[in-house]
Amino acid sequence: MSYHSKVSPTDITAILKTVLHKETDSVSLHEPCFAGREWDYVKDCLDSGYVSSVGAYVGKFEQKLAEFTGAKYAAAVVNGTSALQICLKLAGVQAGDEVLIPALTFVATANAVCYCGAVPHFADSEMESLGIDAEKLADYLKQTAELKNGVCTNRSTGRPIRALVVMHTFGHPARLDLLLQVCRQYGLVLVEDAAESLGSYYQNIHTGNFGKLSALSFNGNKIVTTGGGGAVLTNDEAMYREAKHLTTTAKLPHRWAFWHDEIGYNYRMPNLNAALGCAQLEQMEPFLRRKRALAEQYRKAFEAVPGIQFFTEPPYARSNYWLNALILSEENAPLRDAILEDTNDSGIQTRPAWVLMSRLPMFRNCPRMDLTVAQNLEKRIINIPSSARLGMPYDTPGGDDAT
Amino acid sequence: MSYHSKVSPTDITAILKTVLHKETDSVSLHEPCFAGREWDYVKDCLDSGYVSSVGAYVGKFEQKLAEFTGAKYAAAVVNGTSALQICLKLAGVQAGDEVLIPALTFVATANAVCYCGAVPHFADSEMESLGIDAEKLADYLKQTAELKNGVCTNRSTGRPIRALVVMHTFGHPARLDLLLQVCRQYGLVLVEDAAESLGSYYQNIHTGNFGKLSALSFNGNKIVTTGGGGAVLTNDEAMYREAKHLTTTAKLPHRWAFWHDEIGYNYRMPNLNAALGCAQLEQMEPFLRRKRALAEQYRKAFEAVPGIQFFTEPPYARSNYWLNALILSEENAPLRDAILEDTNDSGIQTRPAWVLMSRLPMFRNCPRMDLTVAQNLEKRIINIPSSARLGMPYDTPGGDDAT
Repeated sequence: MSYHSKVSPTDITAILKTVLHKETDSVSLHEPCFAGREWDYVKDCLDSGYVSSVGAYVGKFEQKLAEFTGAKYAAAVVNGTSALQICLKLAGVQAGDEVLIPALTFVATANAVCYCGAVPHFADSEMESLGIDAEKLADYLKQTAELKNGVCTNRSTGRPIRALVVMHTFGHPARLDLLLQVCRQYGLVLVEDAAESLGSYYQNIHTGNFGKLSALSFNGNKIVTTGGGGAVLTNDEAMYREAKHLTTTAKLPHRWAFWHDEIGYNYRMPNLNAALGCAQLEQMEPFLRRKRALAEQYRKAFEAVPGIQFFTEPPYARSNYWLNALILSEENAPLRDAILEDTNDSGIQTRPAWVLMSRLPMFRNCPRMDLTVAQNLEKRIINIPSSARLGMPYDTPGGDDAT
Repeated sequence: MSYHSKVSPTDITAILKTVLHKETDSVSLHEPCFAGREWDYVKDCLDSGYVSSVGAYVGKFEQKLAEFTGAKYAAAVVNGTSALQICLKLAGVQAGDEVLIPALTFVATANAVCYCGAVPHFADSEMESLGIDAEKLADYLKQTAELKNGVCTNRSTGRPIRALVVMHTFGHPARLDLLLQVCRQYGLVLVEDAAESLGSYYQNIHTGNFGKLSALSFNGNKIVTTGGGGAVLTNDEAMYREAKHLTTTAKLPHRWAFWHDEIGYNYRMPNLNAALGCAQLEQMEPFLRRKRALAEQYRKAFEAVPGIQFFTEPPYARSNYWLNALILSEENAPLRDAILEDTNDSGIQTRPAWVLMSRLPMFRNCPRMDLTVAQNLEKRIINIPSSARLGMPYDTPGGDDAT
């Protein structure tokens, strides 16, 4: 059978049901799994009285994050968007700068750039990782940008292009080595939007270790959740200290005096949320095993189906398969909404990729390179249920590996 | 005995110990009290799986807040700073505007103005409420500002003065009627920074109902806590809808599509934190009773002490006595640090008022009126332990009113 055949929405629904056959009712796109010490830690946190800006869980959570990712430092914050805003600020992004980001991303990536008073500048994607196409970006910058006193400058707008934000789409690592090369060539600071890629590795190194700074997210739909939360990762001690300072109202340490030395933020993760996060991080291994097992089931189920492809990790990466994705053949792209309709009507939650940032009204006038691949992907991607729970073997309802 | 006598730091410590005699160890400035259904609601929230941006507790918490304050609408957000930022945005504050705020406030008030790209403009305090002096402000504006096409404009800077942020210091309501009058006269939008005044009433109306928009905080040191959290209060339905929209990434409702129509924020309170908040709000009555009882004990204990005054609510208000305050006579102001030293060394946590915003390095060039009273208060205020728990009658260790 060929990739170039008409798919049937009801067939897709039926195949999904086969993989998800354990489920009698509706199946969410991604829900958290609280099978560990969540209640123990949260209860302990409540009993301690320290639920807010004081308490030991934040430090523990940061340490566990650093250990798991291999980054030297992690600063826990209220959410992934705030984490990215702080990354950009520490990367030196200033009002009036431009920041290269993928057009195919969640709106938070672009918003965080705007919070710094900077302008998002949209880059195209490539098919292997769904991340920014490094080679195409290099060609584009050759024509569009020039180094002026060592600062990458947009020839058309005259604005400095300060940083490149790489986003690891659905958890799949982008081509970090090639992208780093572009950054070196053009004096751009690399920032990783690793909101989706906790547990994903680029050539055996955890994502988030390639950027000068990286942002994680622990929103309710992520591989682990703190309710709401995020973190700044860095291997640079000075950056870490400044991240902690900026996210805690930039208050100078003193026994009682309220001295603040710059405009700071109230972005520290509350201790209550960190308590939940500590319990969640302890389950990363089973979560990753189950999510990869689920992806493998999807892969097999769609292997022989013409006109549709289950997206698998790039050859250089080991992915967390945060959000599983089907990619329709170009011929079948017009059926995307019918498939979304039929699957959702059948109680299987699916969704398309994000509307490209370049199409949103508030970013319509932002600079962009040719976005042919991203535009094409936007019409063809369908995300399907991906909770860790769904990857458990059928015959062990209590969990193959419950802690 | 007279107000004009030398106080002794060790005497102050001894008096505080008398009031706090139940306490054997150290006494915090303000700690939360979890004596209600905190466990039940938080456990239920975990069990539901909805800890993040979906779930019923956020809506419940917002409804309880609206009921308690008498405001028509409440939008729960991640913290008080974010709440104030959203209030200012909805009040129409734009980049390049000025916003009048008290010099005597927590840094979040000034930071929130800066997040909008606007400039804080500092106002002086008065002794009765510790809030902005309305009459002095009116005199100042008469000289400094003029209405240009209905827009209050700073004559020196040429910038529009868009709004006035009133902060209810330590929970004590500012002179809202007089301040509203100034706002009407100069076309300023009134915004209440009610972070400290949940449970405080101005002439029997809850604070937060006078501004076009108001910000609450549920940080760990507030009268009720959600770990970290805040809320926007308003009586204007359109403002409420826009507050919800802006704080949830400005996403348009759709079954699956990701359309966002403006630069929004990821500021929604997580469901886990709202669950805690629901349990906390149920205890407002005993919390207020205890805090007022504690304040009364302090008042009596310091009544006959020369050179120092226990700050009591203004005659027009009923205060939550969020943070109790001693005010040293001018003569005794130089002893402030010795008193802070002795009390803290003795395990009784005390602190001075905030460093005036006008003295912080990042605000040094911001416009300001004469700040004589605020400068004077800054040197004379000492905050003393204020937890609700401390206001329980001595002979009922289980609580006079535990739910």
